[in-house]
Amino acid sequence: MPGEEHPLHRLFYPDSVAIIGASRSPHKFGHIQVANLLRTGYKGRIYPVNPKADSILGLKCYPSVLDVPSQVDVATITLPAPAVPRAVEECVEKGVRFVIVISSGFSEIGPEGAKLQEAMLKAVEGTETRIVGPNTTGVINTETGFTTTFMPIQGPLRPGPVSFVVQTGIFAGTMLLHVLTAEKFGLCKVAGLGNKCDLEESEVLEYLAEDPGTRMIAMYIESVSNGRRFMKVVKQVAREKPVLVLKSGRTEAGRRAALSHTGSLAGRDEIFEAACRQCGLLRVRSFEELLDLAKAFAMQPIPRGNKVGAASYTGAGCVLIADECSLQGLELAELSGASLSELAKAMPPWAKPTHPIDIEPLHEAMGPDAYGFSLRVLAKDPGVDAMMINIMGLPDEMKGSPFYASPADYVRYFSEARELAPDKPLVACVGGDKEAVGEVMEALEEAGFPAYPSIWRAIRALSALCRYASIRRKLTEGRAGQGRR
Amino acid sequence: MPGEEHPLHRLFYPDSVAIIGASRSPHKFGHIQVANLLRTGYKGRIYPVNPKADSILGLKCYPSVLDVPSQVDVATITLPAPAVPRAVEECVEKGVRFVIVISSGFSEIGPEGAKLQEAMLKAVEGTETRIVGPNTTGVINTETGFTTTFMPIQGPLRPGPVSFVVQTGIFAGTMLLHVLTAEKFGLCKVAGLGNKCDLEESEVLEYLAEDPGTRMIAMYIESVSNGRRFMKVVKQVAREKPVLVLKSGRTEAGRRAALSHTGSLAGRDEIFEAACRQCGLLRVRSFEELLDLAKAFAMQPIPRGNKVGAASYTGAGCVLIADECSLQGLELAELSGASLSELAKAMPPWAKPTHPIDIEPLHEAMGPDAYGFSLRVLAKDPGVDAMMINIMGLPDEMKGSPFYASPADYVRYFSEARELAPDKPLVACVGGDKEAVGEVMEALEEAGFPAYPSIWRAIRALSALCRYASIRRKLTEGRAGQGRR
Repeated sequence: MPGEEHPLHRLFYPDSVAIIGASRSPHKFGHIQVANLLRTGYKGRIYPVNPKADSILGLKCYPSVLDVPSQVDVATITLPAPAVPRAVEECVEKGVRFVIVISSGFSEIGPEGAKLQEAMLKAVEGTETRIVGPNTTGVINTETGFTTTFMPIQGPLRPGPVSFVVQTGIFAGTMLLHVLTAEKFGLCKVAGLGNKCDLEESEVLEYLAEDPGTRMIAMYIESVSNGRRFMKVVKQVAREKPVLVLKSGRTEAGRRAALSHTGSLAGRDEIFEAACRQCGLLRVRSFEELLDLAKAFAMQPIPRGNKVGAASYTGAGCVLIADECSLQGLELAELSGASLSELAKAMPPWAKPTHPIDIEPLHEAMGPDAYGFSLRVLAKDPGVDAMMINIMGLPDEMKGSPFYASPADYVRYFSEARELAPDKPLVACVGGDKEAVGEVMEALEEAGFPAYPSIWRAIRALSALCRYASIRRKLTEGRAGQGRR
Repeated sequence: MPGEEHPLHRLFYPDSVAIIGASRSPHKFGHIQVANLLRTGYKGRIYPVNPKADSILGLKCYPSVLDVPSQVDVATITLPAPAVPRAVEECVEKGVRFVIVISSGFSEIGPEGAKLQEAMLKAVEGTETRIVGPNTTGVINTETGFTTTFMPIQGPLRPGPVSFVVQTGIFAGTMLLHVLTAEKFGLCKVAGLGNKCDLEESEVLEYLAEDPGTRMIAMYIESVSNGRRFMKVVKQVAREKPVLVLKSGRTEAGRRAALSHTGSLAGRDEIFEAACRQCGLLRVRSFEELLDLAKAFAMQPIPRGNKVGAASYTGAGCVLIADECSLQGLELAELSGASLSELAKAMPPWAKPTHPIDIEPLHEAMGPDAYGFSLRVLAKDPGVDAMMINIMGLPDEMKGSPFYASPADYVRYFSEARELAPDKPLVACVGGDKEAVGEVMEALEEAGFPAYPSIWRAIRALSALCRYASIRRKLTEGRAGQGRR
């Protein structure tokens, strides 16, 4: 990690946290925050602050942050907005390093809220206290189990390579619930910045650039605080780590909505779009795409080129894969003579090898191993940079049929291909029976293979990996060029 | 239905079916076909044909279709390709009306297969026997439980308004498995046409146009057999029923793959694209989009305009909804003064009403009913043509929190809105905890409200409903204009 001397270190690795607005009532944010810290295994000191309670969840409660007996690294505030500036003043007096203001009702609601936000900022002016938010869920660090989120978390957080930087409150909470319950890639750090009245995205990106646990960064933003700094930082980060961004406020209607959400001035979209191209940001359109790509980057290597080797359980799948590769900037690899003759030998006499490989005729000859065989051919073919396979989730009733492979079978086939070609990313599309599809996808993702419910989405993920390969090449060449001058 | 005199009537409503290639081995297609017919409640006579078996699944077996003691309306063939032409000849001799050739190994594999296909066609020349396929799963009619598919079906088929016309074999099978196990809209009829050596899409479309059970048609095709006829038919159908089409072979790579899949000549994509615009086809890009839109059309009314009323549990959701409406050709409705003041009255003093409606401040005042309240405001507003709401699936632990609504709560809120405005389509996006999201989506769809896991997809569905409203208007005006001349 960036080291204890980094100015943001204590935000992610606090020794102590005060929960201002802690509550005994189980549905209040200030209660869930404390409960979460107890369940995620956070080892630091937790100080609930509430003048009307003696203890919360077995922890001694303090009337004010000023009464806490030790240093406080991070304080969170969930009080009603008008009470927040006073609480921030107390945090400054206490020498708290980071105040995470969860509450909303600030610049996003108009002049009155903006005044409260200014009062808060005034309180930290010239001090060492930084404000995160307001209007946010704050931070998460899975390495230490530290979280300030107010969405209930059931147990330890799954650690992983993906860090999120998000500019919204509840969105981060629901997104987090989704990631924790539906996604198999783990989280490293999450920073929710809300209205960004003080701490902004560039500072966090700089921190995450140095953070060894963070292998990729996914962002949701409505505005950029400091465009020039942002571009400079992203350009640096993107040389080493993919940066995905969902930026809303793309349209006039969206910009109006952003103004009343986080008080953001979203700016002209063409400018942001150009900035993305220039500094190597991978822009996505939806939350779904953000997660689809995040899991590909989290689980798979960056390919060396954009030649795809593909196989599908049906001819229609082959056609759709071929179309999507072309439409999404990829090329179908030309299979080598060796691959083609290996395929031809394995097929019944009436069939002939094609690419994408139609698995059906292979089933006739070798049953479910046709999936594994196709993957092995693609993995060994020197002309293939990246792999995609379209497979079936079939009901238990079909066990024993030549098409049926169990989740464990699929994991074995995929793992064999990975061993043969660890440098070629491999993604899957799984279709068929709902329950079986769920089981196959879960097993594959547990084993590190991203799985998608549609060919279009699987190829989109593969395409992003290839796009990043080219971005990284360009950014690195750019740097090398600068170095020579 | 089109009536018994319609030439395709017996294909979907056969009194008797012969399964040529019926098998005692449980994984053979010819076994699953028989098992399916017993489980789906098909009331017609079933004649398994297999010279080596006495009976299959309790049904008497016949050595040849010629030995079947009664008229045969439909015969299916799953024999190896070289044996098919002879079997077709026997069907002709028997006077079978429709022969569904499930087997593959025909024009899609090259000259040798093409010869077999020609031999088959020659056998029916000048007769009343029609061929469906080859290389297909055949047909389904949920009204009578009739199906020739070789994917195992567990019980009676859910009837509904959606009919499919598809040009592929296994794809239809897996798609069918998905529809049967994961989708809540029901099926009316399915026609799998495979290589379309005889029966082609225009004839089936003409039939479905007249079929009262079919309220919308979803197609997967790789080529169009007779462009002029196809356009004429679609133009007619689209006046009354939406027609969605996933047409592959869009790119050079896709066209090459289509040639080796169904022997299709996919044609230039610009031409097909222009045809779509001209005759009112709604073209989609992926299987996922096809089903996303199918369920919207199956469950919701066609709006009278494109002004969207929307609400979301988070400001970020509001921004993304506003963006997506603009990007997908919809307008955010301007809420009436009455709506705005109703919202203002219900909100805490610090908040102000915006559109899309940010539900969060309403929760503060009225708990989970904020979802219902927002929907009622939108349903009553005369400026709103179509509605979209972004809601949360929260874990049971949050029961009692002001944000928490149970699946049944959501269904109640949505149903109230439908009662207030039965003519306004309503779609949902659901995010959050995986299990809870699944439960909310299932409950909503059971109640007739399409639910999507992303804002982008929910708005895409709403946009398709609005696009069809305008297509229908244009096609109807066109006809009225012609009438006046």
